[in-house]
Amino acid sequence: MNQDYITPNEWSIIEDGFDKGRVKSSESLFSLGNGAMGQRANFEETYTGETFQGSYIAGVYYPDKTRVGWWKNGYPEYFAKVLNAPNWIGIRILVNGEEFDLNTCTKVENYQRELNMKEGWHKRIFTATTPYGIELKVEAKRFLSLAHDELGVINFNIIPLNQSAEISFIPYIDAGITNQDSNWDDKFWEITNVQNEEKQAFIESHTNKTHYYVCTFMESKLLLDGNEIDVTAEKASTDKQASLQYTQQVEKGQSFSIQKYAGYVTSLNHEKNQLIDAAKQVLAEGIQLGYDALLKLQQEAWANIWAMSDITIEGDVKAQQGIRFNIFQLNQTYLGKDARLNIGPKGFTGEKYGGSTYWDTEAYCIPFYMATKDQEVARNLLTYRYKHLGKAIENAEKLGFTNGAALYPMVTMNGEESHNEWEITFEEIHRNGAIAFAIYNYHRFTGDYSYIPEMGMEVLIGIARFWQQRATFSTHKNKWVILGVTGPNEYENNVNNNWYTNYIAKWCMEYMLENLNILKQGFAADYARILEKTNIQDQELEQMKEICDAMYFPYSEEHGVYLQQDGFLDKEMIRVKDLDAKQRPINQHWSWDRILRSPYIKQADTLQGFYFFEDHFSETELEKHFDFYEPFTVHESSLSPCVHSIQAAKLNRMEQAYQFYLRTSRLDLDDYNKEVEEGCHITSMAGTWMSIVEGFGGMRVKDDQLHFSSKIPTQWDSYSFKVNFRNQILTVKVSKSGVDFKLKGAEQMQVMVNGESRMIQTETMSV
Amino acid sequence: MNQDYITPNEWSIIEDGFDKGRVKSSESLFSLGNGAMGQRANFEETYTGETFQGSYIAGVYYPDKTRVGWWKNGYPEYFAKVLNAPNWIGIRILVNGEEFDLNTCTKVENYQRELNMKEGWHKRIFTATTPYGIELKVEAKRFLSLAHDELGVINFNIIPLNQSAEISFIPYIDAGITNQDSNWDDKFWEITNVQNEEKQAFIESHTNKTHYYVCTFMESKLLLDGNEIDVTAEKASTDKQASLQYTQQVEKGQSFSIQKYAGYVTSLNHEKNQLIDAAKQVLAEGIQLGYDALLKLQQEAWANIWAMSDITIEGDVKAQQGIRFNIFQLNQTYLGKDARLNIGPKGFTGEKYGGSTYWDTEAYCIPFYMATKDQEVARNLLTYRYKHLGKAIENAEKLGFTNGAALYPMVTMNGEESHNEWEITFEEIHRNGAIAFAIYNYHRFTGDYSYIPEMGMEVLIGIARFWQQRATFSTHKNKWVILGVTGPNEYENNVNNNWYTNYIAKWCMEYMLENLNILKQGFAADYARILEKTNIQDQELEQMKEICDAMYFPYSEEHGVYLQQDGFLDKEMIRVKDLDAKQRPINQHWSWDRILRSPYIKQADTLQGFYFFEDHFSETELEKHFDFYEPFTVHESSLSPCVHSIQAAKLNRMEQAYQFYLRTSRLDLDDYNKEVEEGCHITSMAGTWMSIVEGFGGMRVKDDQLHFSSKIPTQWDSYSFKVNFRNQILTVKVSKSGVDFKLKGAEQMQVMVNGESRMIQTETMSV
Repeated sequence: MNQDYITPNEWSIIEDGFDKGRVKSSESLFSLGNGAMGQRANFEETYTGETFQGSYIAGVYYPDKTRVGWWKNGYPEYFAKVLNAPNWIGIRILVNGEEFDLNTCTKVENYQRELNMKEGWHKRIFTATTPYGIELKVEAKRFLSLAHDELGVINFNIIPLNQSAEISFIPYIDAGITNQDSNWDDKFWEITNVQNEEKQAFIESHTNKTHYYVCTFMESKLLLDGNEIDVTAEKASTDKQASLQYTQQVEKGQSFSIQKYAGYVTSLNHEKNQLIDAAKQVLAEGIQLGYDALLKLQQEAWANIWAMSDITIEGDVKAQQGIRFNIFQLNQTYLGKDARLNIGPKGFTGEKYGGSTYWDTEAYCIPFYMATKDQEVARNLLTYRYKHLGKAIENAEKLGFTNGAALYPMVTMNGEESHNEWEITFEEIHRNGAIAFAIYNYHRFTGDYSYIPEMGMEVLIGIARFWQQRATFSTHKNKWVILGVTGPNEYENNVNNNWYTNYIAKWCMEYMLENLNILKQGFAADYARILEKTNIQDQELEQMKEICDAMYFPYSEEHGVYLQQDGFLDKEMIRVKDLDAKQRPINQHWSWDRILRSPYIKQADTLQGFYFFEDHFSETELEKHFDFYEPFTVHESSLSPCVHSIQAAKLNRMEQAYQFYLRTSRLDLDDYNKEVEEGCHITSMAGTWMSIVEGFGGMRVKDDQLHFSSKIPTQWDSYSFKVNFRNQILTVKVSKSGVDFKLKGAEQMQVMVNGESRMIQTETMSV
Repeated sequence: MNQDYITPNEWSIIEDGFDKGRVKSSESLFSLGNGAMGQRANFEETYTGETFQGSYIAGVYYPDKTRVGWWKNGYPEYFAKVLNAPNWIGIRILVNGEEFDLNTCTKVENYQRELNMKEGWHKRIFTATTPYGIELKVEAKRFLSLAHDELGVINFNIIPLNQSAEISFIPYIDAGITNQDSNWDDKFWEITNVQNEEKQAFIESHTNKTHYYVCTFMESKLLLDGNEIDVTAEKASTDKQASLQYTQQVEKGQSFSIQKYAGYVTSLNHEKNQLIDAAKQVLAEGIQLGYDALLKLQQEAWANIWAMSDITIEGDVKAQQGIRFNIFQLNQTYLGKDARLNIGPKGFTGEKYGGSTYWDTEAYCIPFYMATKDQEVARNLLTYRYKHLGKAIENAEKLGFTNGAALYPMVTMNGEESHNEWEITFEEIHRNGAIAFAIYNYHRFTGDYSYIPEMGMEVLIGIARFWQQRATFSTHKNKWVILGVTGPNEYENNVNNNWYTNYIAKWCMEYMLENLNILKQGFAADYARILEKTNIQDQELEQMKEICDAMYFPYSEEHGVYLQQDGFLDKEMIRVKDLDAKQRPINQHWSWDRILRSPYIKQADTLQGFYFFEDHFSETELEKHFDFYEPFTVHESSLSPCVHSIQAAKLNRMEQAYQFYLRTSRLDLDDYNKEVEEGCHITSMAGTWMSIVEGFGGMRVKDDQLHFSSKIPTQWDSYSFKVNFRNQILTVKVSKSGVDFKLKGAEQMQVMVNGESRMIQTETMSV
């Protein structure tokens, strides 16, 4: 943890001072993304110090051949790798013919990085002295356009301070990149064309195996003291790289700038043999608009995003910075415009974990997107899984299931499983439950039932069939059991009767049965179509009911709690606080077997069930389970503190809730786990949002109404959040004196505050 | 399974007819070894068909960098790979300048391979017609000398039958070999010198990382119609290979022969910079003795081995062939002369599994070596583990254990763990128990207590300390439990309270305490030394007693049996015989998770405990457990049928015992698992021996006496086996009319037959 790294600021992430040891971490934190592409905060100019280069294109992946020690039947053939894409940001700089490189400068002063979250850009300013004594003032600003999401723009400005100098800008694009994360050092990219024109350059390449075609392109403008000048470029290219060199004599105090317009067009959105034409079109539009107009569009686009999603916190700058950083990164990662995409755990900030879709999306991200975007965005996330239903059925078949049983993958890009540890891939089957829960949650929040007859019912049937086949009858217990699973707490493997899994399995089957009945009653055509398509039989439905009626749940009479799994009480029940602090995090200090036989919980497991199914349990039951499990929870998953923060707030343990909140919201900014250089924890950022809205804000949806039971940490003066509830934007402001609302929308809204009804009048008709 | 592959014969393994599809399988079955080196039955001449080349040097391995999907704390850095060593057998043959190759011959007739187990040699004879129509009669015989264990000898004889021909023999040695089993395609060997002299050739090479230096050498004699002739060699060499070409015009009907003397000298036994001198010495001795004398020595050496270890079976040639094959292969693999070596699961017949030492050695092999060799051999196997005690303590430390607790590795070459699946490496800890049991077993059988004060006590203390720390107290059960283990049945992972593991853990601690007391009473000097060295405290001993007194054993009142582990009865208890036959073997048809949650047992687990600790349980208890577990056992480990055969025999279920016996004894000869081309199952061959001696023969050692309760399968007329019991060789002959004994040794021996004492007089004084 490093609390002094990032300068507190309400709207910006700021790093003051140049520290070579922090370069990789800052490259993660200051990443940019626009939903379609993303870029780590690598320097434009050459940097010979330690760096982790990362440019990413949403939806472009490589199916890297699986690597395991001993092959086990059922392993997937590949692991989908997030691909480092060609470099479009590069601008080499020569000063009197010498390479400019912060790693070799003799002095770097007044260095500041800013990630401006309000407007969506990244800037570095500094003064540096080259080995030959030339003092340069540099300002480099860039953004990935939201309005034109195939385009990135860089404005790189240099002023020689102590003498005149010949300065060359050498903007380049480079497809000779590799992945750090690679199983067998396969060659991921094939380059087919490197083309240098008068002012533009293009590289055509495609991924091996998946055959995504990408054209990386660039064009630049040069400015002297702010006025565009015509400098003839020297062209150069290799088999991997294209560059154009612009050289200019720059007087002391004069400013020389390059504006680079660059980016990708891909076969995801264009004909693969017309990519250069498409790239020229993008460049033409970008150049015509120009840097200032594009920047203005960027500011407007982010203003629109914040108008629907901002959270303010008064009286606690670090908390304010934390939550905005989370909201900003989520929006950089996924904007919901493209139903083929999803929310990777590292977004566009790193390669780790591979794939794009985990159960994180359904369990943590959907509430955020439902409340801060148009309804269509969450629906797109549900549609994504509907489109993968066929693959989920195939995946279950590979594991021996039949008759349309569907097991959604643990990790995927295209619906196929691409995770390959048996204890996760084969056994962490609770993920299927989160996907059904998201359907329920979507309907509960939006009131839009149409997804269920149109698509969701088929998903629910596939999932219910899986649970029906996966549960087995124990004659010994005279109950249905689910053996050999890994629950959300991945510090247990291959356990029997994980309470969370058994509970959500039962719920999935019941929810499917309930909705099938609704369709039967009110959606005759859909019902007939689904019956025909799935061929679901009464006998199956009967058996599901039987299983639900006699599902086994491990319970301790002594403690009055459900047990996380069979045998949990046999462990050495030493609380986390009684552990030697030097042993933590245990995943860095203990061998895997030791972790497994310990009672320590990586992330909410039983409590995750209490979170999803809050209404099924009394507050006393919640308290009992919270008091039983939290002391054994090490929160070594980024997805853990948010659930605990919400539940602590509900239990009026505000100081504990606040500590959990800080941990989740500033996880990356303060680098709690000393790993931010690998990338940011994107999906858990949605959990941070939930900590405020559902935790402190106490917001729930019940019977088509918003309910609030809002609290405020003592550290804060007030806070506010916005919710798009059924196409009206409600701003909720909580202060020590109570909760106030503002509503933008078509009609008044009744909300419940601490059990009492309150009618909110709309302020304006514009949404 | 292929019952018609090998021609039944009492003393030889015979293949009749040339079948290209069987070449790789025969290369395994007909392998040769002399304890120091081994050789798959690859052809000497060029063969362009499918083949799996394998030459091996005992003790020479490569630490191949570990390959896993996701790294887990505690994984070993490397997996020790059995290395394919330079080829010493190669003899290219040119007939009128054309390469002779069985794969391209137009006709191959009267092809017969023989592995003569009585005398220890391999021979191929055949008549083949080359593409140019030359008919050749070939006889190629070879052996790996037991008397000179760095030397192999080949006699290759050709007669052109239908015309005269110019024949070239091109004997070569070749270090340009690779491993099929490699994690990262590392280069395992470095070649430093290829040296061709007038009649000899040498290649010096060494392994990377481990730096074993090996000189591969050869020299040849040429004979025409049996008379040595002088043919001038043409020398040739590459950077990897050295060859000498001998060309001779051979008349129709004339016989042209080459005798090749070749092999390895290594830095295990010589100075690494004097290897060529050592090789010349070996060649000089070999050449001076000559082929016939060396063959005679070979016959004598094998006669000596058989004199101590032969088992005869009258009336069942296949059973006879099976048991001799097992005894032969065990002796080829390990002769007990070198305490640095051990018994790899594939011996010298393939690369699979890597490493050389598994718990197989202690659990299955030691009884065979104790009874068929001088006592020193088994003692060497125990000493091997004593020498690795320090590494076992380090291994335990890596997993968080302290204070001299020792965890012996699952797989090793040098004492370090080199297996890397967490569910095995970290959790299959019962292996520690087998190592302690072998100490007990050695003392029980040989009567030699000296190993315990000298070495064994320290091993027992390290092991007992491991169990003491590994057991934890369950306040819930008010018992000591052992959580998160894999038992001998590897079709269960990460289970709690595996009965076998808990039982042997308790036994290990009790046995240690008992022997510590014996030392305290009678071995004062050793006791003091061990106390000083291990610093074992009374408090530890007290806690061990506490654990032993309150160890938890899962038990089913309903079934009256100990349960393999907690929760075993929750499974779907469908018997193996009720499974669809097409689903078997389940490890080829089911995904891993499905296997894990099934009740199916890969190899004896609870029954393994009943085998080791037979005297702790009544025959009724054994029967109950056998009847409960055997129906769920799929025997997909080669180590399973032998234990079941022994127990079935004890329970007078002779037909079942016989079927289990056949399965274990002819596992490779009949290729039950369709995988013999990868190599033979060497360690389970010792289990076959136990099936006869302990199973049918009913031999036990109690109170320093041999006890017999012998039975005979109906299929057999009689059978006999030999046992070296305390330096006297007892031959036990069992027929339908009873059991007879012959004794060679110094004095009469009292044995117990079905509970009655019988005095056996010695026949001769020569042992």
